[in-house]
Amino acid sequence: MLHQICAYGNHFDCMFDKSSSRSVNTSMTAEETIPKDTNSELWRTLVAKKQIGIEQQIPADWRLPKEFNDSLFEEKKTAGINLIAADIPRRSGLLSESELDITENYTATALLELLASGKFSSVEVTTAFCKRAAIAQQLISCLTETCFPKAIERAAFLDEYLAKTGKPFGPLHGLPISVKDSFKVKGLQSTIGYVSFLTHPAETSNSPLIDILLNLGAVIYVKTNIPQTMMTGDSENNIFGRTLNPHSTSLTAGGSSGGEGALVAFRGSILGVGTDVAGSIRIPSLCCGVYGFKPTADRIPFGDSKSELATGYPGIVASAGPLAHNLEDIKIIMDTVLSAHPEDLDVTAIGAPWSYRFEKTGQEKLTIGVLWEDPSFPLHPPVRRNLESAISALQKKGHKIVRLIATESCSVAYGNRLAFQYFTYVPQKDHIAASGEPPITSVAKRSHPMYTGPPPVDPELDFGNKLAALARARFRYMESWRQLWVDNHLDAILTPGAQNTAVPHDTYGWPPYTLVWNVLDYPACIIPYGEASKELDPEPMTINDGVQPSYNPEAVDGAPCALQVITRRFQDEMCLYVSEIIDRDIKDSS
Amino acid sequence: MLHQICAYGNHFDCMFDKSSSRSVNTSMTAEETIPKDTNSELWRTLVAKKQIGIEQQIPADWRLPKEFNDSLFEEKKTAGINLIAADIPRRSGLLSESELDITENYTATALLELLASGKFSSVEVTTAFCKRAAIAQQLISCLTETCFPKAIERAAFLDEYLAKTGKPFGPLHGLPISVKDSFKVKGLQSTIGYVSFLTHPAETSNSPLIDILLNLGAVIYVKTNIPQTMMTGDSENNIFGRTLNPHSTSLTAGGSSGGEGALVAFRGSILGVGTDVAGSIRIPSLCCGVYGFKPTADRIPFGDSKSELATGYPGIVASAGPLAHNLEDIKIIMDTVLSAHPEDLDVTAIGAPWSYRFEKTGQEKLTIGVLWEDPSFPLHPPVRRNLESAISALQKKGHKIVRLIATESCSVAYGNRLAFQYFTYVPQKDHIAASGEPPITSVAKRSHPMYTGPPPVDPELDFGNKLAALARARFRYMESWRQLWVDNHLDAILTPGAQNTAVPHDTYGWPPYTLVWNVLDYPACIIPYGEASKELDPEPMTINDGVQPSYNPEAVDGAPCALQVITRRFQDEMCLYVSEIIDRDIKDSS
Repeated sequence: MLHQICAYGNHFDCMFDKSSSRSVNTSMTAEETIPKDTNSELWRTLVAKKQIGIEQQIPADWRLPKEFNDSLFEEKKTAGINLIAADIPRRSGLLSESELDITENYTATALLELLASGKFSSVEVTTAFCKRAAIAQQLISCLTETCFPKAIERAAFLDEYLAKTGKPFGPLHGLPISVKDSFKVKGLQSTIGYVSFLTHPAETSNSPLIDILLNLGAVIYVKTNIPQTMMTGDSENNIFGRTLNPHSTSLTAGGSSGGEGALVAFRGSILGVGTDVAGSIRIPSLCCGVYGFKPTADRIPFGDSKSELATGYPGIVASAGPLAHNLEDIKIIMDTVLSAHPEDLDVTAIGAPWSYRFEKTGQEKLTIGVLWEDPSFPLHPPVRRNLESAISALQKKGHKIVRLIATESCSVAYGNRLAFQYFTYVPQKDHIAASGEPPITSVAKRSHPMYTGPPPVDPELDFGNKLAALARARFRYMESWRQLWVDNHLDAILTPGAQNTAVPHDTYGWPPYTLVWNVLDYPACIIPYGEASKELDPEPMTINDGVQPSYNPEAVDGAPCALQVITRRFQDEMCLYVSEIIDRDIKDSS
Repeated sequence: MLHQICAYGNHFDCMFDKSSSRSVNTSMTAEETIPKDTNSELWRTLVAKKQIGIEQQIPADWRLPKEFNDSLFEEKKTAGINLIAADIPRRSGLLSESELDITENYTATALLELLASGKFSSVEVTTAFCKRAAIAQQLISCLTETCFPKAIERAAFLDEYLAKTGKPFGPLHGLPISVKDSFKVKGLQSTIGYVSFLTHPAETSNSPLIDILLNLGAVIYVKTNIPQTMMTGDSENNIFGRTLNPHSTSLTAGGSSGGEGALVAFRGSILGVGTDVAGSIRIPSLCCGVYGFKPTADRIPFGDSKSELATGYPGIVASAGPLAHNLEDIKIIMDTVLSAHPEDLDVTAIGAPWSYRFEKTGQEKLTIGVLWEDPSFPLHPPVRRNLESAISALQKKGHKIVRLIATESCSVAYGNRLAFQYFTYVPQKDHIAASGEPPITSVAKRSHPMYTGPPPVDPELDFGNKLAALARARFRYMESWRQLWVDNHLDAILTPGAQNTAVPHDTYGWPPYTLVWNVLDYPACIIPYGEASKELDPEPMTINDGVQPSYNPEAVDGAPCALQVITRRFQDEMCLYVSEIIDRDIKDSS
């Protein structure tokens, strides 16, 4: 029975499926043009052609010297190397001092000020990030499509605009922003990791979010890598390869916005946008040690992005949201995009500006619920240690900590089983088989959480009754959470983003601690905090369920750890307000 | 085929069906206890027993003198009488001067100030409205359940609270508020007009909205009448009879919140709450000459109210909202309820307080789109005349009027056909047949809009494909409207609430001009404006489609007319802000 459920795939992302409120015009003609013979090697030809095209887009003088690359490659083969500590962009000699300065020493907020005042030109900032992204791409395969010349051309236009008018083009004037491959950018393809989509033409229009970012003055310069199917925590596909974690190349960068997480961590991007229906913004954030925010669905516009899924069916709705180096930069995206009337471009977007009402309250002492581990998904020692450390820091600062006891009606495992049933109740086309390409390893594994307990809804129900039963079960789950929240007078919940840190490739498995908040449609923010240490946590922990990664102290030593801050549906402003307080207080040792 | 579609009923209200976000625990045991033999007269016995119980709840000294009632009854039989002009409460001698003053000379806002300052006690205000509601009930059958003694007891508690603490209990301190029968009030039944529900026990808990109103300091004193099935514009059922329009007893009070509209118009309530999935707040408002506001769904909490519908299916989601005598009072409900954290009690409610951001802009000149008549639903002459008069007044005040040409992709008729398919795609139980009671006349008529064009979605599709096709069609419809809105730079749309005014009983038919905004989930506000006049519009207009009422100048002479103001989804604050400007400017002849 489980196999049968799995047959439709366990999609992690881009469930375009909230009743009518989703774009529906994805043209899927690949099946007609690629022979379905799985022995056919035509798919390899298509991929090879694409790869040459991609490679050619990196200018010769932005390419890493062959010997440099070769030596790194040898290291990468034998053990994971920390490309951040290795300081490759500097050592490569490809970036000027000024480009190193621009990409390393500023927040997005600071860059925006310098751009608006003309102290930095958009051309120099854009060029710096284009070059650094190109270097990242050569090391960790974090990109899909690039448009470096167009980006620099646009930057020049913005510089000219500022020079002529004396005013910035908009609040994001001149800032390069990276976006996940699933967003449509005019002139670029959106293959979302399917070889069968390689025959789709380049987009002729932008997703609404892209138009909004451009209207705000941003520069779009790259699209970032994702897993085949966008449904695993390993951003690998047969077209663009596997994104590596810049903290350790033997670890996953997370998924499905893995290219985004890795690129931001490498500082090849100062601000990126991903999407998240199960953790796809937060998993790369926690794996790569950056901040990531999944808002309530339909706040950041998500319409008309590329998807492979059948439309019109109710389910768990994906959110778009930012990845960044700090919370101030996260808020820039929320504030500027929501103030730009996204509802004018995207009917799925809720037309409500970002509010600063919590800032106005001046509330400083919080009641924070801690959602401890679900017995089905035990925490790895470094995750546990850092969570405890954060709790103790928060208590010292006077916050009230409430350890939540989640009964079965609120349990993470139950929520995940429910989500799995949602993800699999609508039959989907098989876009992998359509081209003859093989499934990537993490897709082939077909992880699922159904071993943790009985299915919330009878799998034998007919389609209509199953759909309604799923909705009722989800309603009850949401009600239980509401009750837990109110009974404990919570301002927020603190919880790990995963039971693990970034783990060796193809072992990430099912993402219980991120997905549960998609089921509830709660906003969720990842805050990097601490790291794994083989000295502090020397004991391995083996998990043998075939779904979860084990803890291997040696393999993950030094990997970033993270916290996850949760508020209730539509309390996005509260989520970032609380996150800022927590982020400050856990890092302030005074 | 149409008959087949109709077989599931064309429900106007209480579609509890937005995926999981709806209450699901309505116990439907009636079918088990009432024999299904349609010849059985058991249902009459049940009704008779209930009616005696209801009647006994009106104290003897609140009853209209028999001869007084008899003479009115004779008039009512022969022709519609205007009970408001007839000044019955005063003529009846049942209300003291002070009670007449309280119920006639203040807004809710003013009463709240007087209650908070202790100038009026809640007992005297509550008693006055209880008595006036009791008089209304004897004339126009606008109530279902009453709890006069408990209401006065609560008022006494609130008076004591104020006396003891020197502070009002909450922002609605001491104010009696009436609510539609579908809201659950502890100790009262919620039969929603089904005889088969008469065997359901009294409620043991309140709907979240009721708890919120009580927490804010309000007094709940009556529940108000609705149609059998809550699906017609005539508030009639076999238990509580037919609600009459106080402006003319031969005209419908509208539905489904018809008791609410009639009671407010009679000033038996200063502030009421109804629900609306096709016009059920707005139809009674426009029929009875009061203000009514249907917010975006899920703003005012709608959870755990009584419904007869299958839960868990996506569809058009009902809204709860206020009916009142002016817009300031409408805003009181929006502001106080949304500030009371409805999300704490009702997981379907969006936790966002009411915002005054539009007031802060100080914008005074508006761009107003006028949605002219759909050829399928021609406007009656008084409706057309008053709309033109409003347009001309607004132009004089400097507002820009844009006459919208709605193409088929935005047409009212198309939106209504889509809504009809939504209302009928899920098989529903027949709660009428369950008791053997007959359908009321307006239910038996089974009006529908499918004669206006082809069904938007192939009716022969299987359940799953039909559901998805409906969602996709609705998405396209919403997109077309977004485009129309943006292209015309609209602040709001002005449109009639119906092609007609209140019309003779059982002729209201299908409600195209209210329902279309439910399909789009746009907020919509009814503003009373002008009235029908046989002198000004002497020519009858006959419509022979069996669905729409004809214009009969004699029958509707003097009936209230109204405008409807629309903004986009979640722009509830803008809707009321614009409504206030329009309301002021159309009535200011300077």
